[in-house]
Amino acid sequence: MTNYFDSAATTTVDPRVLDEYIRATEAYQANASSVHKLGLEARKAFEDARRRFALALKAKEESIVFTSGATESINIVFSSLLRNPSPGKAIISSAEHDAVSSFIPVLKEKGWEIDIIHPKKGKISAEDLYARLDRNTKIVAIMAVNNILGTVFDIKGLVSAVRKFEKENGKKIFFFSDMVQALGKIDFSLEDMDVDAASFSSHKIHGVKGCGALYLKNSATFTAISRGGGQERGLRGGTENIAGVLAFVKAAEIYLKEKKERDERVKKINSIIRNGLEKEGFKILSPEDSSAYIISYVSTWPSEVTIRMLSDKGFYVSGGSACSNNSKASGKKILTEMGIEGRDAEKSVRISLSKDNTEEEAYNLINAIKEIRNV
Amino acid sequence: MTNYFDSAATTTVDPRVLDEYIRATEAYQANASSVHKLGLEARKAFEDARRRFALALKAKEESIVFTSGATESINIVFSSLLRNPSPGKAIISSAEHDAVSSFIPVLKEKGWEIDIIHPKKGKISAEDLYARLDRNTKIVAIMAVNNILGTVFDIKGLVSAVRKFEKENGKKIFFFSDMVQALGKIDFSLEDMDVDAASFSSHKIHGVKGCGALYLKNSATFTAISRGGGQERGLRGGTENIAGVLAFVKAAEIYLKEKKERDERVKKINSIIRNGLEKEGFKILSPEDSSAYIISYVSTWPSEVTIRMLSDKGFYVSGGSACSNNSKASGKKILTEMGIEGRDAEKSVRISLSKDNTEEEAYNLINAIKEIRNV
Repeated sequence: MTNYFDSAATTTVDPRVLDEYIRATEAYQANASSVHKLGLEARKAFEDARRRFALALKAKEESIVFTSGATESINIVFSSLLRNPSPGKAIISSAEHDAVSSFIPVLKEKGWEIDIIHPKKGKISAEDLYARLDRNTKIVAIMAVNNILGTVFDIKGLVSAVRKFEKENGKKIFFFSDMVQALGKIDFSLEDMDVDAASFSSHKIHGVKGCGALYLKNSATFTAISRGGGQERGLRGGTENIAGVLAFVKAAEIYLKEKKERDERVKKINSIIRNGLEKEGFKILSPEDSSAYIISYVSTWPSEVTIRMLSDKGFYVSGGSACSNNSKASGKKILTEMGIEGRDAEKSVRISLSKDNTEEEAYNLINAIKEIRNV
Repeated sequence: MTNYFDSAATTTVDPRVLDEYIRATEAYQANASSVHKLGLEARKAFEDARRRFALALKAKEESIVFTSGATESINIVFSSLLRNPSPGKAIISSAEHDAVSSFIPVLKEKGWEIDIIHPKKGKISAEDLYARLDRNTKIVAIMAVNNILGTVFDIKGLVSAVRKFEKENGKKIFFFSDMVQALGKIDFSLEDMDVDAASFSSHKIHGVKGCGALYLKNSATFTAISRGGGQERGLRGGTENIAGVLAFVKAAEIYLKEKKERDERVKKINSIIRNGLEKEGFKILSPEDSSAYIISYVSTWPSEVTIRMLSDKGFYVSGGSACSNNSKASGKKILTEMGIEGRDAEKSVRISLSKDNTEEEAYNLINAIKEIRNV
């Protein structure tokens, strides 16, 4: 897709990934839970994929649960919490994607105390988090990279603060991080980070849609709300989507392998856009040290108008997140919660990048943005 | 796959369906929730698919929710029930798939009264169901076609009994039917059947894995446990799997269009197998009037042994269901709950058919079954 600047919403499927999907569909036609030879072959391919994914993310293979996407991964974590008969305090960042924040009213309904932690100047500090922890705290949910501004949160430092509190107080706190926009974009090792759970999505890294993963450090102690057919050790029922998972793992391997080269390319395009916008007097909302893959700025017109005007010129950007288009203005709400002024949030536009973008596209985008300013 | 007799576990992907998956992946790369032109094109393709699916199943398009599979469809229904603050009585058939029956302990935990209805001689009578209904009954869950024996339940008649009780008592009862093994195998119109909800799976009808649907007669009055990004009118969060859904809808259209021809073919193969087994003195567990696509019989050896022996000869059958291999012996439990004697259940083997099977394969299977008898 030419002039596609909405890769934080979804990415193009890498042709190598689609080839793997086709290959796997034809090679593994049986049900991975069947016990005949064809079923066992499918099972082996599926477990090999799990091993490779775990290796890529520096995690134990038994910690990886394949799901239908990040939303389902998040649902497994929060539905399990909801089943807990004794609610406690949940500390949740105001930067979270709807897939997380939509659980806030449900948690409240079940008697949970919700403590929203707001980033200050694009950061959530370990000290601030530590100060909020108390003996009633049962879960902390902070995403690794925000999907609208690209803000990077120091998950390793934040988890350390929680682990320190745990040691001092002899109480376990569950740390969940939505890492959808972090996979292949920031360096991390799941084991080192020491989170209890993390969510990942295939279609944000040039994999097919309908696939994701949940990392669960101690899956053995975790209770899912429904067992279904008992797949994924009872954590995720439903016939395994072998082709989708094999394609996802292939996508992750390629995406991580090509990270350095892609990062350089994306950083260069990011500079062109950032400098171009600044030169024209546009205000950039994404912090300087945010993910190079996301630049949000204050456009001339209300977000929706700018998006449509650019779309008419053949440039594809977004306001807030794609998902927030379904739920009235929640993208803007997240921006104001993250410290962006209301009138800036109203006009905010997200430009998100991928391996597919070229420098020429970046210059053309700036020109298009200039053109629509004077309409 | 030659000599593959496990199509109730999963089917081969129809090459025409895989072509549609590839076409849709390339044609609709954007996020269907994005508001630029590419997003709107993806949205249009997705909504067209919903309309076509609804038409194929004789339902209103606003009643169709696309999911990651039947297990998720079932989860949406039961998770919503669990959220109901005032539990009541749930009447659930003993023939249900694990995806449904795994909710029984969770419902009990939340204070629900569970009334298990057992088929008698392979039937659940409307009278029996009617007699169990009381003013506390809030849900009835009875599948349309059992996945192990192929038993067909008269859902239309059963729903009528429930609607009669509703009228007499002025109370609403939610009727859910898992229709995974019914789609394209028995004739039905969702509107005529008058169920409140039904679940469907793509990979059981030669579609890709990781896709399914939930029919919800009145989706407007339904509350899902999590909204996620608000997709599917808040009933199912997560970026729409456009290629998967378009492939699923294509699969459903082909499967329904070719039903008559396929049914004839499958019935012929079914007779060859049934007669062959009976001639050799094997006991058939599937009722005479069960779905032609499933024949369960009592094999010479314990189920697992027979499956492996046949697998070694290149024939692929199953015992119970594929899913039940994950949860110890629950397939056998379902059989005994359905009135099959324990010693027969221990040796039960399921032969399940599809468009791919040939008469020659059927004769060869009977020969293989004869051969392993005398080992």
